[in-house]
Amino acid sequence: MLDVPFPPFCAVLGALGLACVAFVAAWCQHWRGGFALDGSARTFNWHPVLMVTGMVVLYGAAALVYRLPASWRGPKLPWKVLHGSLALAAFTLAVLGLAAVFRFHNDHGTPNMYSLHSWMGLATVLLFSCQWVAGFGAFLLPWAPSWLRALYKPVHIFFGSTILMLSVASCLSGINEKLFFSLKNGTTEYKLLPPEAVFANTLGLLILLFGVLVLGALARPSWKRPDADSPDSCQVPAPHR
Amino acid sequence: MLDVPFPPFCAVLGALGLACVAFVAAWCQHWRGGFALDGSARTFNWHPVLMVTGMVVLYGAAALVYRLPASWRGPKLPWKVLHGSLALAAFTLAVLGLAAVFRFHNDHGTPNMYSLHSWMGLATVLLFSCQWVAGFGAFLLPWAPSWLRALYKPVHIFFGSTILMLSVASCLSGINEKLFFSLKNGTTEYKLLPPEAVFANTLGLLILLFGVLVLGALARPSWKRPDADSPDSCQVPAPHR
Repeated sequence: MLDVPFPPFCAVLGALGLACVAFVAAWCQHWRGGFALDGSARTFNWHPVLMVTGMVVLYGAAALVYRLPASWRGPKLPWKVLHGSLALAAFTLAVLGLAAVFRFHNDHGTPNMYSLHSWMGLATVLLFSCQWVAGFGAFLLPWAPSWLRALYKPVHIFFGSTILMLSVASCLSGINEKLFFSLKNGTTEYKLLPPEAVFANTLGLLILLFGVLVLGALARPSWKRPDADSPDSCQVPAPHR
Repeated sequence: MLDVPFPPFCAVLGALGLACVAFVAAWCQHWRGGFALDGSARTFNWHPVLMVTGMVVLYGAAALVYRLPASWRGPKLPWKVLHGSLALAAFTLAVLGLAAVFRFHNDHGTPNMYSLHSWMGLATVLLFSCQWVAGFGAFLLPWAPSWLRALYKPVHIFFGSTILMLSVASCLSGINEKLFFSLKNGTTEYKLLPPEAVFANTLGLLILLFGVLVLGALARPSWKRPDADSPDSCQVPAPHR
């Protein structure tokens, strides 16, 4: 692939992540009435903003910490703390984002957890909570033996990418669903593609691009920490069987 | 990660792929009125069946051809032909699946290409067409110089995984959207979670699981062709900078 160094790529990705947050906030502020904590649709509006900011942008930042060449030198602990803290911040926003939608549903007598979006989204956050707890126990607490760390590390890496994929898929189905809900009356029907629909569809594509770029960066062998100690993270080619 | 050999994993994945096809066909047959070519909702029903079968299951099969240990020995050409043929079959089903939804929309005066699902889905199929043509030109036709093949191969691999991610995300948003469209009247509203909703949500989760397993299998270093000739596909760890 093109021989781009990680830091400038990371800067572009940061700008794209900020654009995702700005777009989702602008959508909710400009077209959906803004934000409040009163159980109304303005409480619901925290849901997309917090999920995109937490489960996509902050999560992506956490995932990429070990791709920074600076993290390859010196003690690993500060980078582990940074990785775990960003992930914890992402998780906290996700929980607040779930609280916003549950509050809105409960205040309106709408059942929770019926759509495919909700099943996927909750599964994603639950997986993320397991991932965080297991990662904290295995890599940040000092008691895990090195064989357990070596065994768990590729599992943690695999689920790290998987959870990001699930987050992106959940966000896209959520934006699609919200637009069908919100754009119903004759003048602004979704199928007439009003400016709000173009704007929110574009937000969806930006989130998709952000997710694909993070997953691509994670998969790129030349950006991985060179002293990767897991036997599964990058092997020397084995002889023919 | 667990030291599973590829062939039994592949058998499980094949069963899961067949389950996805069976579930989407059963959904459309049992709850959505079955199949026809008359421009009605029964014409639309070909859309989910063809997209899931083509862009997820057959696409996944095409992507995994080079993970079969049998493909690592002997001449590469038959395996390239198999990879390209499965991808072409997937693409053909996708085009027919798009034709079904365009026919349905046109016959009902519904605009095409307004939802985020449609933007994402069409972008996925367009990317796939570029991927197929570029792959055919670079790897199956005999004229591409080896430096060009080596340069393009990691790009082809990256977009191979990316297109599968986009396909899965498109299918999930499509199933979610279709359930909101179809389950509207008082007795079967989506939010009351009737059996159809549980069934189609489960289909969504099966597709998600299939996609994650294929992407996991593609990323797993020990299942890659050992003589991978791309400098980007698996590097020997570089020295510290």
